[in-house]
Amino acid sequence: MSIDLNSLREGNRRALAKAITLVESQLALHREQAQHIIESLLPYTGNSIRIGISGIPGVGKSTFIEIFGLYLVEQGKRVAVLAVDPSSPIAGGSILGDKTRMEELSRNSNAFIRPSPTAGALGGVAQKTRETMLLCEAAGYDVILVETVGVGQSEHEVAGMVDFFMVLMLPNAGDELQGIKKGILELADALVINKADGESINLAKQTQQHYENAMHLIRHASFWTPKVMTCSAQFNENIHAVWDMIAEFYKSSLEHSVFEQKRAQQNTAWMNKLLFELLEAKLKQNPEIQRQLPELQQKVINGEATPYFAAKALIDML
Amino acid sequence: MSIDLNSLREGNRRALAKAITLVESQLALHREQAQHIIESLLPYTGNSIRIGISGIPGVGKSTFIEIFGLYLVEQGKRVAVLAVDPSSPIAGGSILGDKTRMEELSRNSNAFIRPSPTAGALGGVAQKTRETMLLCEAAGYDVILVETVGVGQSEHEVAGMVDFFMVLMLPNAGDELQGIKKGILELADALVINKADGESINLAKQTQQHYENAMHLIRHASFWTPKVMTCSAQFNENIHAVWDMIAEFYKSSLEHSVFEQKRAQQNTAWMNKLLFELLEAKLKQNPEIQRQLPELQQKVINGEATPYFAAKALIDML
Repeated sequence: MSIDLNSLREGNRRALAKAITLVESQLALHREQAQHIIESLLPYTGNSIRIGISGIPGVGKSTFIEIFGLYLVEQGKRVAVLAVDPSSPIAGGSILGDKTRMEELSRNSNAFIRPSPTAGALGGVAQKTRETMLLCEAAGYDVILVETVGVGQSEHEVAGMVDFFMVLMLPNAGDELQGIKKGILELADALVINKADGESINLAKQTQQHYENAMHLIRHASFWTPKVMTCSAQFNENIHAVWDMIAEFYKSSLEHSVFEQKRAQQNTAWMNKLLFELLEAKLKQNPEIQRQLPELQQKVINGEATPYFAAKALIDML
Repeated sequence: MSIDLNSLREGNRRALAKAITLVESQLALHREQAQHIIESLLPYTGNSIRIGISGIPGVGKSTFIEIFGLYLVEQGKRVAVLAVDPSSPIAGGSILGDKTRMEELSRNSNAFIRPSPTAGALGGVAQKTRETMLLCEAAGYDVILVETVGVGQSEHEVAGMVDFFMVLMLPNAGDELQGIKKGILELADALVINKADGESINLAKQTQQHYENAMHLIRHASFWTPKVMTCSAQFNENIHAVWDMIAEFYKSSLEHSVFEQKRAQQNTAWMNKLLFELLEAKLKQNPEIQRQLPELQQKVINGEATPYFAAKALIDML
């Protein structure tokens, strides 16, 4: 497959889509081609703000992303929307069906929407999404929205690849769990309580208060105290405030010199993760190790061998 | 150094201390000897309940551990106390000085107290503490208390090696942060508010209510809802209730068949961690890799090379 990189850089959506298809391909040849493309585009990447958006099904994620995306386009931004899990609304998991999903945004020439790739080998979906993000940046998109419904480890993966991570919530104070998984509140730079409209306004305010208390308990030492705010995507209320908050975060993180630092840390962590996966792959290519690995793992599980003994035995076979 | 394993198994403290010294040694020969000892004792390990105890300085951790340990000894238990960080009270970091620290417990023939090892090479302090835990189990200790003040990653490490992880807290409700680090509440199977005595009783109850709300928000789907309780180690109040709670957790986790499962997961995760460290060590033995690693890392940090490119380049040199 030949790809015109100049067209891609000029924002040609077809060229971008083709490059992403290479990134997502399972064929080794395509993967190699994709790596060359990314390497050559690397000088033109990094000039976006990367925003992770998480929230359980029913929270109104696709409506929020559509309205938020359209607002950003109005502000002169070019917006790319990527998904990391197959059950995410933009990837086809919405019970509302295709028609209602980000219809207006998807038709806008300054927006690019790409559903979730199927799980790949090395690095999984996260690796492909990271690479796709770089391609979108090279194509001139200056806001990248990475969307997740939070299956498995995906919130952690998304939080590890974006500049700002926010969680959409329902107006539902107090004891209601909202299906929030262990650890999510701690990843969040902001909680945004959606559907704060009509009869739910008071409940949304209570929820806001509730989570402000909770976030206070678990906030971490940093230049940024996670914000808790309300909005209504359906009635287009307070959407601008969400962007203002992110812009404030962006400005503040630049001022505190932590913006580039966080990206550098993310890249280093990502390199180490890939290094481990590649080493693992190398281990598994060794027939002797492949033969003995299941037995050693079982022994460790049964408490018949120490983790050290098993790890050492495997390494010594290399 | 020769160690009488029969004496160790019969509970001889001198033999146990000698074996731990081998585990903690920096000498390769000693480490190897230690591994043989652990392997041969493995069939006699695992028969304890492993309890992690965390809490910031000033929370009364050493008083709590002394009173709690003495209570357990009274109940016919044999108790080992280990520390994972050099600044922990039992390891010498207490500002109160040696004399006041667990004096009574340390003199009790059914208790064994071992300060934190200095950081080692492979696996760090956590590796040594895990191995020491196994030795203590082989020596017949049926409750292992692993204590941490929570420096760096140590709470995560301790939570990853124990059956039950609890955090001691101060009576200090509301907006007070108590120096609680990001992620700690999510690791906890219980929060125990110490110093719930005298004029602090009401404050302790408010704190309890406060954290019950917070824990409710971040609890995870499991057979166990993290408990929040109050006690006073100084006045020996409610200490028995802490043990009753842990006994209930133990019973319930056995009933739900998750006790052994959690240990198996911990062992597998630990094996993978060691495998990675050993692979890393092997990588670093390669002079070509050693030469190029800093440059590649810098390129990744500067965004001049993708994490994939750098990881692949390193692996291809193996």
